[in-house]
Amino acid sequence: MNISMDDAQRVLQAQPFSRLLHAELAAFSSDGVELRIPIRDEIRQQNGFVHGGVVSYAADNALTFAGGVVLGPWVVTSEYKINYLRPAVGAWLIARARAVHVGQRQAVCRAEIFTRSGDQEKLCAIAQGTISRLGQPPGVAGDADPVGA
Amino acid sequence: MNISMDDAQRVLQAQPFSRLLHAELAAFSSDGVELRIPIRDEIRQQNGFVHGGVVSYAADNALTFAGGVVLGPWVVTSEYKINYLRPAVGAWLIARARAVHVGQRQAVCRAEIFTRSGDQEKLCAIAQGTISRLGQPPGVAGDADPVGA
Amino acid sequence: MNISMDDAQRVLQAQPFSRLLHAELAAFSSDGVELRIPIRDEIRQQNGFVHGGVVSYAADNALTFAGGVVLGPWVVTSEYKINYLRPAVGAWLIARARAVHVGQRQAVCRAEIFTRSGDQEKLCAIAQGTISRLGQPPGVAGDADPVGA
Amino acid sequence: MNISMDDAQRVLQAQPFSRLLHAELAAFSSDGVELRIPIRDEIRQQNGFVHGGVVSYAADNALTFAGGVVLGPWVVTSEYKINYLRPAVGAWLIARARAVHVGQRQAVCRAEIFTRSGDQEKLCAIAQGTISRLGQPPGVAGDADPVGA
Repeated sequence: MNISMDDAQRVLQAQPFSRLLHAELAAFSSDGVELRIPIRDEIRQQNGFVHGGVVSYAADNALTFAGGVVLGPWVVTSEYKINYLRPAVGAWLIARARAVHVGQRQAVCRAEIFTRSGDQEKLCAIAQGTISRLGQPPGVAGDADPVGA
Repeated sequence: MNISMDDAQRVLQAQPFSRLLHAELAAFSSDGVELRIPIRDEIRQQNGFVHGGVVSYAADNALTFAGGVVLGPWVVTSEYKINYLRPAVGAWLIARARAVHVGQRQAVCRAEIFTRSGDQEKLCAIAQGTISRLGQPPGVAGDADPVGA
Repeated sequence: MNISMDDAQRVLQAQPFSRLLHAELAAFSSDGVELRIPIRDEIRQQNGFVHGGVVSYAADNALTFAGGVVLGPWVVTSEYKINYLRPAVGAWLIARARAVHVGQRQAVCRAEIFTRSGDQEKLCAIAQGTISRLGQPPGVAGDADPVGA
Repeated sequence: MNISMDDAQRVLQAQPFSRLLHAELAAFSSDGVELRIPIRDEIRQQNGFVHGGVVSYAADNALTFAGGVVLGPWVVTSEYKINYLRPAVGAWLIARARAVHVGQRQAVCRAEIFTRSGDQEKLCAIAQGTISRLGQPPGVAGDADPVGA
């Protein structure tokens, strides 16, 4: 079951935490997913950089949506790994992700997380993880296997 | 250079994103670190579970503080990996972490993330990662090597 | 479907690569799995330490067998992450693993890899990963979802 | 300090475990590294696929050499993560890796591992990890920080 960009937007808007972070979905297709977060003071750590937890959120959620492109709407991040490369400073935090391999129930996806200032982008983290399709809408099952974002 | 519980509290309170999440430091010693986040609507995803991004934040920050116990105050998470085990539902999200190995410049740490409802705790994610000591206070260097939380 | 220690031994002996490494299964129960590899010259790298690839093999295979304890015989490692902590030097390489969480189709497991010299053990790596149960014996399916060890 | 293709070949040939696996270095430049392993019976698991431990070795070693391109000869894999995508079947196992980000002491690298049969290649695993430069030739230090391959 495919999801349209509009459907995907609705899912993102239905996530209170994504609204708290003012996250926006800028792309959602088999070419990839792009998630954008405006860098405001509320998402920084003690040195003025974007908190690693926000970079992780961006990676995790972009991976989940990239899995959703190929697996349909009932997906969760089962696991992922992230390497931070640079302090995240700028006007926008931008996560791009796409599926590298799609199986029956899982997709393995990669993400790159950038900061943007004006026209310039800097790669600040990379991530790799597994997105799983749930057998049924989450909440129906008790303890479904892997449940992430 | 060791950090006291009070110092660690100050670092946490100096992180705007940790304040946004109402995160509290409940333990900070060589026995381990405990970070607690009250589960409010703002941190959920579309199915009412705590958003994976918040679970990731808890893991990442607990790992960083566990590294701080053994490496001193100027530390960052360089990389980590997380496996989500169960939907995070309850009153509190609790991350516990400790260093497994300490080197000259890095510590490898593990974290377990639980949800608590009343007296009951459920393991909902596990994480493993590398915390690096910065050669100087962050912000002084331009592009320090690995810079996370 | 449970597997006995004898069954598990037969699986290990049916792996030509495990025979090439002289790997032995020393424990296989819900308390955990132990895999031992004698450290011979053939498995070293250029500085005389056990090659990281062998440490990875030990982690991967111990994780798989730990998943087999709880998921039955048709399991594969889907993914894992490893942190190397120390040069692996000694007489034996020993990997211990156990399942941390068991779902319908997957188990999340952790492993510690030690070297032993005489009576002394040193932790030289830690790993964390996902073991998946195959829907049918591997080889029957064409491209099953996740296929590791 | 840069390493030539010849130097890199010598390092690979100085690894007894790489010789045991008949590993060959087919490319070594800033465009990337390619490591090839002929698929023989000795490296299989019980279902006839290449053992995950060998796929891990290929990923780990390709990551290390990719780090060596940018960091010089004294490098080790500190940590990495691998996702297995497909059973590894074919005539050759081929790992390609390159550095994604280079810091003072570390490089973050990515690898893709393929199998080749005739002219056809299939992606069977992807990996991401950290390569660290040692402060001195390994073996001189006692317990250097992170020591992998």
